Amino acid sequence: MPTKKKLTRLERVRAEMAAHGLTQLVVSDPMTIFYLTGLRIDPGERMYCLLLSSDGSARLFVNRLFGTPDVGLPVINFDDTDDAPALLAPYLNVEKALGVDKDWPARFLLRLQELPVAREYRVGSICCDMVRAVKDEAEQQAMIRSSQVNDSCMVEFAAAIHPGVTERQLAEKILAIYKAHGCSGPSFEPIVAFADDAADPHHQNSDRVLQRGEMVLLDVGGVYQDYCSDMTRTFFTAEPTEKQRQVYELVRLANETAEKLVRPGVRMCELDVAARNVIFEAGYGKYFNHRLGHFIGLNDHEYGDVSSASRLEAKPGMCFSIEPGIYLPGEFGVRIEDLVLVTEDGCRILNAYPKEITVLK
Amino acid sequence: MPTKKKLTRLERVRAEMAAHGLTQLVVSDPMTIFYLTGLRIDPGERMYCLLLSSDGSARLFVNRLFGTPDVGLPVINFDDTDDAPALLAPYLNVEKALGVDKDWPARFLLRLQELPVAREYRVGSICCDMVRAVKDEAEQQAMIRSSQVNDSCMVEFAAAIHPGVTERQLAEKILAIYKAHGCSGPSFEPIVAFADDAADPHHQNSDRVLQRGEMVLLDVGGVYQDYCSDMTRTFFTAEPTEKQRQVYELVRLANETAEKLVRPGVRMCELDVAARNVIFEAGYGKYFNHRLGHFIGLNDHEYGDVSSASRLEAKPGMCFSIEPGIYLPGEFGVRIEDLVLVTEDGCRILNAYPKEITVLK
Repeated sequence: MPTKKKLTRLERVRAEMAAHGLTQLVVSDPMTIFYLTGLRIDPGERMYCLLLSSDGSARLFVNRLFGTPDVGLPVINFDDTDDAPALLAPYLNVEKALGVDKDWPARFLLRLQELPVAREYRVGSICCDMVRAVKDEAEQQAMIRSSQVNDSCMVEFAAAIHPGVTERQLAEKILAIYKAHGCSGPSFEPIVAFADDAADPHHQNSDRVLQRGEMVLLDVGGVYQDYCSDMTRTFFTAEPTEKQRQVYELVRLANETAEKLVRPGVRMCELDVAARNVIFEAGYGKYFNHRLGHFIGLNDHEYGDVSSASRLEAKPGMCFSIEPGIYLPGEFGVRIEDLVLVTEDGCRILNAYPKEITVLK
Repeated sequence: MPTKKKLTRLERVRAEMAAHGLTQLVVSDPMTIFYLTGLRIDPGERMYCLLLSSDGSARLFVNRLFGTPDVGLPVINFDDTDDAPALLAPYLNVEKALGVDKDWPARFLLRLQELPVAREYRVGSICCDMVRAVKDEAEQQAMIRSSQVNDSCMVEFAAAIHPGVTERQLAEKILAIYKAHGCSGPSFEPIVAFADDAADPHHQNSDRVLQRGEMVLLDVGGVYQDYCSDMTRTFFTAEPTEKQRQVYELVRLANETAEKLVRPGVRMCELDVAARNVIFEAGYGKYFNHRLGHFIGLNDHEYGDVSSASRLEAKPGMCFSIEPGIYLPGEFGVRIEDLVLVTEDGCRILNAYPKEITVLK
């Protein structure tokens, strides 16, 4: 990562800190530290954080086990026997508030409070989350490439669907195809749901065997050059019934209706409502029982909801999913999902894989 | 899980709470909740906890998305739009200390502190960790069975070692063998290290191809009926050199010396020191650069260190690894690991797979 990018990202986080009234912030999410410094460490149970101050300083605290990485920032090393949180104290202003990550383990926070090192303690990860929500140019290109790979993979996933295959076998095959396409792994465990299994949006893949005529829902993504893709398609293995066709086209219309509205300034709740209305007006409202989408990037789920409760405004560079669904218990389920990237005057839909009714032979 | 066991485990946790001066405790580790109630939920980012009080009450707080599980305890359901931590308040005594899990995310803890709901907040997960460290009868049988499966699998792993295979291929094969033996998955990603790759105890499997004559280190475990196994063996693919033989026998002696000392009352640091001395006296002390072992059970790494810093005393039912190693950078590495279960008058070594020098043909 070029130095320019690093500075820009850190500077953007500091601007958010100012907007949130924070002068000091503990960044402990390993993916956010990767985003800001290019350094990738899985610290396990050990303390690992970046301390940012509004004076422009940034210091990395890392257990000596992981070495002394050269990321152009001062590194404070410590050992397993050290009181690691106490090492932050000399760099903190006890008269100011301290922001910490929403997920920081209680054992570190309670130790800081015991010392104490700040006037008050607040969840401050929003300062990083808001920056990560708006992808910079390099990230936008990475998101585009990652979804292009997902499109190519989906062609092979569809070809692997045939009566006799089990959900678990298909999931294994999907993982192998992602690897073959250069992905480091899946964005999340592939969801493979046959027939009425797809009526549960949180279905766990089983050893169920596909029968000719059953529908197949695939909700899948891969991690390509660090960035996640995520797409859902629902396939047929025989000509759809009238009801199946009606529900499918309704979900597709909900998906496309929301996608057409994506542009700078639109609120996430407006997108959710637009898609939901399409389904509601056809009488299937209660069968669309989850939010319309989520933000995505280095993680498959990032800060930012596309839901009726989210007043977040779309900005160029934001990337999220549009994934309406209708789930009919005991019958079948349909979900159609693309990723979209907000542009200056609208959006780019990152998935080109067809959404027309597809009957696999 | 029979009701009797559940009560016993909860009662044991309450006894630890009393010993630690806690009358109220938030248990949020999903595996500890499974241990105490039999309920298995992966809550993701959502609040999920069991609130234990010294008055004998236990209440489960769970998002409605996961239903209202019947675990013989009062369940408090909530929605995504609720202020979930605030729901704990009516059941807490604001004049007493509250124990929370060491890993509880800051966003929940800070919200409780803001309300506030207790006089002070302390890390209290030790009350559960100490109970989980001493396996009850059913768990002891589960640990024995899990390691028996690991022994059987190791026979097949050894048979899969041949010149030309890569570390990653062997790791894939290991995963498939665990599945075929009824494991739900590996205890951790298998460590497969050829030749000098084994000189790094935290080696990442690569596409390195095994050459005839290179040594092979396998550090592997599977999850069988919820319980983890973990064993390391180091194989030869040609007659060992004098140095290889000497180092191997030294590690084996260190392993067996520590195992012979395991009995109720021995401190973990005594075990570590005994194994370390064997290696130190032969001049290889600085090449054994990690602790001797760790506790294990439902998780592959549980609370409890077998290290020079741990004064924890062995008790019947404790289960941990004994895994000394010698790592010679640029040359090779040897580690030999068994799990042991402390009995009334000594210990049962859970791995029967041979530790003699084995040359695979």
